[in-house]
Amino acid sequence: MAQDNVLYCFAQSGNAYKVALYFALTGEAWTPQFVDFFNGETRSKAYRDTVNAMGEVPVLKRNGGMFTQSGAILSMLAEESGHFAPETAQERYEVNRWILFDNHKFTSNYATLRFLLSFAKTGETGATEFLRGRVKAAFKLANEHFASHEFAAADRPTIADLSMAGYVYYPEEVGINWDDYPHLQTWKARIAALPGWQHPYDLMPGHPLPV
Amino acid sequence: MAQDNVLYCFAQSGNAYKVALYFALTGEAWTPQFVDFFNGETRSKAYRDTVNAMGEVPVLKRNGGMFTQSGAILSMLAEESGHFAPETAQERYEVNRWILFDNHKFTSNYATLRFLLSFAKTGETGATEFLRGRVKAAFKLANEHFASHEFAAADRPTIADLSMAGYVYYPEEVGINWDDYPHLQTWKARIAALPGWQHPYDLMPGHPLPV
Repeated sequence: MAQDNVLYCFAQSGNAYKVALYFALTGEAWTPQFVDFFNGETRSKAYRDTVNAMGEVPVLKRNGGMFTQSGAILSMLAEESGHFAPETAQERYEVNRWILFDNHKFTSNYATLRFLLSFAKTGETGATEFLRGRVKAAFKLANEHFASHEFAAADRPTIADLSMAGYVYYPEEVGINWDDYPHLQTWKARIAALPGWQHPYDLMPGHPLPV
Repeated sequence: MAQDNVLYCFAQSGNAYKVALYFALTGEAWTPQFVDFFNGETRSKAYRDTVNAMGEVPVLKRNGGMFTQSGAILSMLAEESGHFAPETAQERYEVNRWILFDNHKFTSNYATLRFLLSFAKTGETGATEFLRGRVKAAFKLANEHFASHEFAAADRPTIADLSMAGYVYYPEEVGINWDDYPHLQTWKARIAALPGWQHPYDLMPGHPLPV
């Protein structure tokens, strides 16, 4: 029986992209449900009450449940399907480690910096300077890791790579020079070469934003 | 055979406390290895080369391996021992979800705010104002969750609670009024009442800081 994989998402959300990319790469059937984030949908009472009390995207509706937090969703999907899953206790640890690094350092600071500069349009502030410093530290660590590893957590792509891929393909300018991170660039290209890969702006609804 | 659980830690690190608390509550033997964070040890080449390339605390030396990221360490320990572990696929998802929420929103912003104000002593800046807003949003969500849940992810304490407990017992003043979050306070007291619980400043070396 087909799963009712309805993904609450929008094109600019790299956290949603992590899950959409899993579906794109595995070929598992899914349906996007557009969330009008930029007009406040995730802050509405209806969204908090019926979709996600945490007010975030993505949310995956599946088997009658509503699942949140991209890393927890990816772990659940991989555990069920075996696709992009860790296979040993050591691999489970490595996958967890890189998904946590992604949520704690890599995605989180970059996503917030991009939101402030490209969408909230705050201009340069103490917050953006602070976040950019954190992004550079996280990018440096990831770049060093990919100097000697083809993929994040195993000798093949896992959900840890899908998690880290969340925000790396977006074109918005946030004052980070990608050329400073050549091994990260090589890894990005390696993920983008996987069969079924699509850019987030092609894979999810809502791009471009209305002017 | 006893495990060689050597935990690289220092008293002010709530991320290290998450793992130290697991040992305190389970009674599993462990040894703290003091890391002189405030004199730059984690930024040293020796630390990066031999302990943790990510330059972070905690690191757990165990069975000849060196393990990093508190959430990944807790998942590994719980999987091996069964203590504070999820027992079903649904519980694994909930535990992952709350550990990720903790790393992404709850611990991360609070820990950084506390570091800037209490240790780096930056005074109030754009970064601290930004972080405090994020802390309040995360605390509000956690407070609402604990209004109807005794523990984070199951009907008993799990490693998700230990993760969220990382920074909640520290006394430093960072401009957050805990009285605004009564259910979070109740949950804190519930965790502190578990047999074996100790305050981070009693459980790990390095407190108080030299003046």
